[in-house]
Amino acid sequence: MEYQFSDRVKALKPSAIREILKNSSAPGIIPLSAGNPAPDAFPYEDIRSISQELLENTPIEALQYSVTEGYIPLRQHLMEYMGRKHRVGTDSDDILITSGAQQVMDLLTKTLLNEGDAVLCEAPSFIGSLNTFRSYRAKLVGIPMEPDGLSIEGLERALETEKNIKYLYTIPNFQNPSGITMSYEKRKRVYELCRDHNVLILEDNPYGDLRFKGEDIPSIKSLDEAGIVMYAGSFSKVVSPGMRVGYAIGPKPVIQKMVVCKQGEDVHSNIWAQIVCHRFMTETDYEAHLDRLRGIYRRKSSVLIKALEEHFAPLITWSPFEGGLFAWCTLPENIDMLDFVRRAAERKVCVVPGTAFLTDESESCQSFRINFSTPTDEQLSEGVKILGETAREMAR
Amino acid sequence: MEYQFSDRVKALKPSAIREILKNSSAPGIIPLSAGNPAPDAFPYEDIRSISQELLENTPIEALQYSVTEGYIPLRQHLMEYMGRKHRVGTDSDDILITSGAQQVMDLLTKTLLNEGDAVLCEAPSFIGSLNTFRSYRAKLVGIPMEPDGLSIEGLERALETEKNIKYLYTIPNFQNPSGITMSYEKRKRVYELCRDHNVLILEDNPYGDLRFKGEDIPSIKSLDEAGIVMYAGSFSKVVSPGMRVGYAIGPKPVIQKMVVCKQGEDVHSNIWAQIVCHRFMTETDYEAHLDRLRGIYRRKSSVLIKALEEHFAPLITWSPFEGGLFAWCTLPENIDMLDFVRRAAERKVCVVPGTAFLTDESESCQSFRINFSTPTDEQLSEGVKILGETAREMAR
Repeated sequence: MEYQFSDRVKALKPSAIREILKNSSAPGIIPLSAGNPAPDAFPYEDIRSISQELLENTPIEALQYSVTEGYIPLRQHLMEYMGRKHRVGTDSDDILITSGAQQVMDLLTKTLLNEGDAVLCEAPSFIGSLNTFRSYRAKLVGIPMEPDGLSIEGLERALETEKNIKYLYTIPNFQNPSGITMSYEKRKRVYELCRDHNVLILEDNPYGDLRFKGEDIPSIKSLDEAGIVMYAGSFSKVVSPGMRVGYAIGPKPVIQKMVVCKQGEDVHSNIWAQIVCHRFMTETDYEAHLDRLRGIYRRKSSVLIKALEEHFAPLITWSPFEGGLFAWCTLPENIDMLDFVRRAAERKVCVVPGTAFLTDESESCQSFRINFSTPTDEQLSEGVKILGETAREMAR
Repeated sequence: MEYQFSDRVKALKPSAIREILKNSSAPGIIPLSAGNPAPDAFPYEDIRSISQELLENTPIEALQYSVTEGYIPLRQHLMEYMGRKHRVGTDSDDILITSGAQQVMDLLTKTLLNEGDAVLCEAPSFIGSLNTFRSYRAKLVGIPMEPDGLSIEGLERALETEKNIKYLYTIPNFQNPSGITMSYEKRKRVYELCRDHNVLILEDNPYGDLRFKGEDIPSIKSLDEAGIVMYAGSFSKVVSPGMRVGYAIGPKPVIQKMVVCKQGEDVHSNIWAQIVCHRFMTETDYEAHLDRLRGIYRRKSSVLIKALEEHFAPLITWSPFEGGLFAWCTLPENIDMLDFVRRAAERKVCVVPGTAFLTDESESCQSFRINFSTPTDEQLSEGVKILGETAREMAR
């Protein structure tokens, strides 16, 4: 049979990251391309004892159908916790538990976007989200990144010239892939500009708890008096990505529509995982756990920095970063970036080419992304060494 | 802020079943409206020991990111098992693990359907799937049901007259809500007609293993030489719905596109649940478990039938059923069905009005759906008694 696909799907390609990830688990590969939490970051002993207690005492609750909005104690606790600790969420907001934060991107887009409507994105930005927006045939408009966050001039220009802008997508903390953190001044300005143009903000914050240097900066959502910010949170980087538990906190009318869309997508998220997340947050010392994670990534990032200084400098540069899981590295003009990534892969070192993160993948880009949470210390040092050697050979 | 929703979402309403379900867990309510497995159907002791062993020995595997296609051992086992036991799946087919079978409906629709394209559905049909199709702005075309499955005449007429038909959606076994099972002769005819008109078939089979009377009938997928059938399977009714594990077996090119769509929706399904399902299928006596489930529902259905004979006959009729979780009951013409459902709810008995399952909810319908898996035996008898009394009062 000749299969006729929908227009939206005809143009879609598999995520470059996912495709690379598939091979990156092959034996002998040094995986600097992934975004997996470090194996020692998983609180698996607590998860095991919570899970055991749960399946012992209230198994039906953990295995039966549940409501689309999410496990009520988890929703209540997150609203209280995020309000108290981060000033995220108001009386006009509601919360929806999702199957990972990726589903927040999907549900908000489904709720707001007609084909051809515009989404403003940081350029570069997280490929997984960009592909979700593409799957709804969004027009992606890239706003260039600067060392303190997206270009305000670029944002102003886009807000003035683009039609039917549905939202701005931003990752203000330790952005994936650039590692950049948006300054507080820019957060305020971005909020005001979007509010004045009646444009929603989708604030994606998977790495906020993973700051290992410097001071926390209040989220854009904490400024939200007008009800224009949808905040996406996730347990993937702080508890477990395999559980697929994320959440959206945003204006009630928008959350209500997202709930209806979620009913049609997966009815509700895995309830065992939701209960485990709730008990882990409330029955263990959650803040101590986050401190421990920051310690792990502070240490791993220093292993990376040491290797970069030894093997990259001065040929390959990298952007400073104060948290998250990634370093954004840039080759000199005389080295072809895609060719470099290909040669590195032949030498069994996987990194993600920067073009994968652009709204237009055909644009030129001299950067690539290194992840430092997945590899072992030895892999990290060895991988960076091979990357440095490869670049030096190509620069000759 | 004035929120501007997408066209697709403006018209959507929350699922009537989900809305009713929310109240049906209130204290004192007799829940004949749900579709939950019976509490004693959960193999929670096996799940507990598998989960414990898993989180003890390979915790990282159960908590880390995984691949979009699904846990490879589960995919391999399901292909082997479904091929051997049900002749489902060929060399031209592939398998995708989904977040419940609901996600199969979503991903196939996203993959195939442009706005305004037609989906042929049994009338009545499962509201959850209909709402998913609606969320992509499908034109739903209802094919009337007969005691041995959908009307072949109705299907022929639709295939001749409707434009841009993307697929036929059918639940051939113990259909939700009608309880009807499609005869083998009709399955063959439906397959041939769709094949000859280049129309795919989405065969949804959540209840196939729950036959407690009569003989199994081969699935439509088992006839599929042309690669036109997408088969949707689910662990919700045989292991646990809260885990949200389902699967699609269908033509490789279509599965590939569905994988890309799933990447953008939730990256992958909860991996703990996928591993638990795999080990449960392979490390316990799965066939004995299915036998036990059939015993549970055979017994519960006989409690229902006894109550129907005592309290419904001859005023309210019901369709015969040989498996599944539902009975489809029909009121005489002189009783207003929606008024009846409302009065029953006032007396704390929840059933689902038949109109909820129509492609056009404004059509008239004298039927309502009773679920016999969720309530206790006492609730079942008491609920049917109250429903019978309500109908008799209204018939006066």
